[in-house]
Amino acid sequence: MSKSIFYHAGCPVCVSAEQDIVKLLGPEKVDIVHIGSNKGLGFQKQESAGVKSVPALLTPNGNVLHINFGASMADVKG
Amino acid sequence: MSKSIFYHAGCPVCVSAEQDIVKLLGPEKVDIVHIGSNKGLGFQKQESAGVKSVPALLTPNGNVLHINFGASMADVKG
Repeated sequence: MSKSIFYHAGCPVCVSAEQDIVKLLGPEKVDIVHIGSNKGLGFQKQESAGVKSVPALLTPNGNVLHINFGASMADVKG
Repeated sequence: MSKSIFYHAGCPVCVSAEQDIVKLLGPEKVDIVHIGSNKGLGFQKQESAGVKSVPALLTPNGNVLHINFGASMADVKG
């Protein structure tokens, strides 16, 4: 895995952070995943990766950087 | 301002995030500031920039991304 993955849920906090991250890392280095649009289809992948809140950046080495504090996974699940 | 500034206070959470950020952005694109080693010399600069907790990344466009939640500025001031 050589790309980072940016998880967000579409909230204003997420979008603002997304724009900064994409600008800083370069769009070719980060995938964007909107987990809020995927409700019910399973949050297992991001939760097993350690994503506890969004927005969050999963780095290529497997660390999760939780950025600001938009919403807990529990809130996103609704 | 074309470089980002990574503020941290020397805690394990900060150091881990610092290594990821430097790796992702490239060491030439980010300055590291250890604010914990600077106690009493003033936190005004980072606080006026909007840094509310550390570790935090101040981006070139002036946004502050608070990463995970290491410590509040109040705790760092001690």
